[in-house]
Order: sequence, then C-alpha cells, then structure tokens
Amino acid sequence: MSKEKPLILITNDDGYQAKGIVSLVEALKDLGEIVVFAPDWHRSGMSSAITTSQALRYQQYNKEENATYYVCNGTPVDCVKLALNEVLDRQPNLVISGINHGSNAGISVIYSGTMGAAIEGCIFKIPSFGISLCDYTSDADFTHSAKIARLIAEKVLAKGLPQGVCLNVNVPTGEPKGIKITSQTQGKWVNEYQKGQDGAGRDVYWITGNFENWEIDNDNSDEWALTNGYAAVVPVKIDMTAYDFIPELKKWNLA
Amino acid sequence: MSKEKPLILITNDDGYQAKGIVSLVEALKDLGEIVVFAPDWHRSGMSSAITTSQALRYQQYNKEENATYYVCNGTPVDCVKLALNEVLDRQPNLVISGINHGSNAGISVIYSGTMGAAIEGCIFKIPSFGISLCDYTSDADFTHSAKIARLIAEKVLAKGLPQGVCLNVNVPTGEPKGIKITSQTQGKWVNEYQKGQDGAGRDVYWITGNFENWEIDNDNSDEWALTNGYAAVVPVKIDMTAYDFIPELKKWNLA
Repeated sequence: MSKEKPLILITNDDGYQAKGIVSLVEALKDLGEIVVFAPDWHRSGMSSAITTSQALRYQQYNKEENATYYVCNGTPVDCVKLALNEVLDRQPNLVISGINHGSNAGISVIYSGTMGAAIEGCIFKIPSFGISLCDYTSDADFTHSAKIARLIAEKVLAKGLPQGVCLNVNVPTGEPKGIKITSQTQGKWVNEYQKGQDGAGRDVYWITGNFENWEIDNDNSDEWALTNGYAAVVPVKIDMTAYDFIPELKKWNLA
Repeated sequence: MSKEKPLILITNDDGYQAKGIVSLVEALKDLGEIVVFAPDWHRSGMSSAITTSQALRYQQYNKEENATYYVCNGTPVDCVKLALNEVLDRQPNLVISGINHGSNAGISVIYSGTMGAAIEGCIFKIPSFGISLCDYTSDADFTHSAKIARLIAEKVLAKGLPQGVCLNVNVPTGEPKGIKITSQTQGKWVNEYQKGQDGAGRDVYWITGNFENWEIDNDNSDEWALTNGYAAVVPVKIDMTAYDFIPELKKWNLA
C-alpha cells in the first residue's frame, strides 16, 4: 500500500534548481515517496533563520510518480516548517537537506542553512540529516556524495535517530576512502571580509574568509576526516545547554 | 588609563532604535567603553544567518564620551563579525546582545538573532550573553531586565566564561522573584502559520505560533522559571556534537 512507503522530505539551501538537490532526489527516488520543498533561490548562510517580515508563498512545479516538487520564497527552515505545517498530510519518515555545494563542517554547522533545515526536521522529531560536498562550484560532481546520501538514508530509515539528534554529513571531493564518525571541529572563520566600493565610491564589505582549525591534530574531528579523504558524520544535538557549566554558574550566586 | 577600561560590544536583533538596546546601553554606560553596532531594522528570527548575497555597509551615527554608535545593514551576526573584523581596534571584553523584545527561551535559542549574535561573540572567544524580556511590545518596561543585564555583565567581566560557552538570559515581565540557572526547555513551536491572501487573492503564509512545552514539570528548565516569575540563565554551548550518540553511531558500520 502506498501509505506504507516511507515519506522523505527533501530541501536544501542552494535553491530548487541546484545540481545538488537534483542528484539527491535521483539517488533516493526508489526508497519511498519523495516531496521536494526547496527555496526559490540560494539561501546560503541562512542558519535556522525564519522569515518574519514577509509573507511566504509556495507552489508545485513538478509531479512524477513517486515525487512531488514545491518551490517556496523562504529560507530552508521556512521550507521545512511550511511543508510540515501546511502541505504534507502525514509526518515524513526522514528529512534530508542537501546535497549542499560546499562544506558545512566545523563551526559552519552554526551558519549553515542546509543544517538549519536538518535541525528543523529534528525539532519536529523526524530523523533528519544534512549532507554537503566540499565543492562550491555549480557543476560539482555529486556521484560519490549521492551514494553516501543513499547509504545514510537507508540506515536512518532502518535504525532511526535519538530524539533531539540529527546528522551533519560532509563529503570530500573525489572518491572518499571511507566514512568517519567524528565531532564538530573547534575553530572559527578569519579574514572574513573583502572590502570593496560601490558605484558612488562608498565602502562595502562582502563576506569571505578562511576556516582556522584549532585542533588540527584531532583525528576524531570532521575537518581532519575531510582533509584526509574521508567523509565525516557528526551527530548534532539541538539541546545547546552546557550542562557541565551549570554547577559552576550556580556558585555565582546571581540571586 | 583608557586602555584599561573594559570594551563592551553591544548589538541586538530589533534594530538600533529599539527601546531594548537603548535601555541596555544606559544600564552599562559606566562599566567601560561601549561600542554599539546594531542592525538598521529589526532582524528577528535571523538565528546565526550571515549575509552572502548583498554588500554590507555601516556608518557611525552617534558618539558620546564613553560610547560610539554604529548602524549596519546586516544581520546580528554580520554586525558582530563586521565590528570585530573591520572596526574595533582591540578585542572586546564582553559582547552583549539585547535587550530583546520577546522571549528567547526554550527552542527559540535556535531561531533567535539575539542569541545568534551572542553565539558569534563566543565563537570569537569573547565572554558573551544574550538577554531578552518576555514582552514583545515596542514600549515594554525594561527596568528590571536592564538591572539583570548590569548584574550579569559585572559577573561575567569579573569571572569570565569557559571557551565555547555563552549565556542565554530571559527575564519575565514585572519584578522577577530571583534568577534561576536552568537548562533549555525541550519543546517546539506549533500552529506556526496564519494563512492570508494577497491583493490578487493568492494564498500567503505569515509565521506565528505557540510554544509547546514537552517538560512542563521540569523546574530546572527556562520555561518553568519564567512561568513562575523568575529570570532564567541557560549556559549555551557552541559545540553541538552529540558525544553520547557517537559510540552507537559507530556500530552502524557505515564504512
């Protein structure tokens, strides 16, 4: 029965026309019923942003036997929320966001619209993951990352994920040597702006930068795995409480 | 010497003209040298979003003896990044984001632009906190929340915070009974859209909703504290790795 097929919600932050999302749908199409609900244009760096000052709209732009496609004028999180609140008639079994053009390893999990969408699926208690390929170009080769997406989708459908945990999957270029389970590399972006001038000669700033890795020798970190040719899977928690620091903070006697 | 004065960077997500940020500056003015670097308009729900598709600009709009004021066309995180990368000549001793008009307790920490800015300060290894008042109105009374901001600013300046941990402070309306150190309440937003129509009769969706609390009896949670008249302080980690789940995930034998 069609009701028994897993329902898989797919979104991304590069927009519905990106090669990454097309490759992802292609790789997963026979696993269940697919609904694509993706932004109309790229929303990179949108984190878990929601649109509060503008009305959201969506429309169906394609329908195939096992797949229905919608495009929306919101952020990746808006896409997940709108699909789950207003469009789908049952809770998906899996939310996948990607395949992103560019790494979301290390601290980038915080800024990533791809991971914002995966985290949103997780907030809805749906097993969810984001997947990114370390190649920003629009014609990147998604062959290997699509295979990994398929593998992880099958595993997550079979085993589920604990409530409040989703996965951040990053894949190097070329054929990965394997898949490592890692932690989020500690570090930050540096040299973050390219200064320019607008047509009237006024200073403007464009975001750019390099990732500064603070634990370059940690072979349990996602950056280490990627640098050494492995795909990296980081389990990500949506409870951001620093429980370890609570006893110390209580000693501050704030009240 | 003026070099010895603590440098305090202040931002928010309600925009530089919001009553909350004006109240915050007023409460902290004699604690050190203040730099305000805030968005030109409200950026609620912006999470840790960064602006990638538009040029950023900023300009100074006021200068007083101990305080310099800048306005920027970016998100709260853009404001912190731009101030730290391009404007300030030394690392601040403290980053404070707020006082937000409206609660950022529970899962709202994920969507909050206020907390996005505090998390950004933390990524830069600067002791940082976000502070929010549970009152969305533009003329909210910030008397008590400004006192709490002052108290916590003094404590954080004196004691510091562990690397990778910032604080999410939420204050109820009226005079708080005290301050509780709590965890982030588990739950999610529900009934998230108000459906409307545009002038041409097409469906549009506006974000709204109610917080559904999944641990209503947990008196160590921030929602419990606020509901019972206390301010809540949650220590927030920027390492989102779910370390507890790594051993189980390794058993999946992904590669």
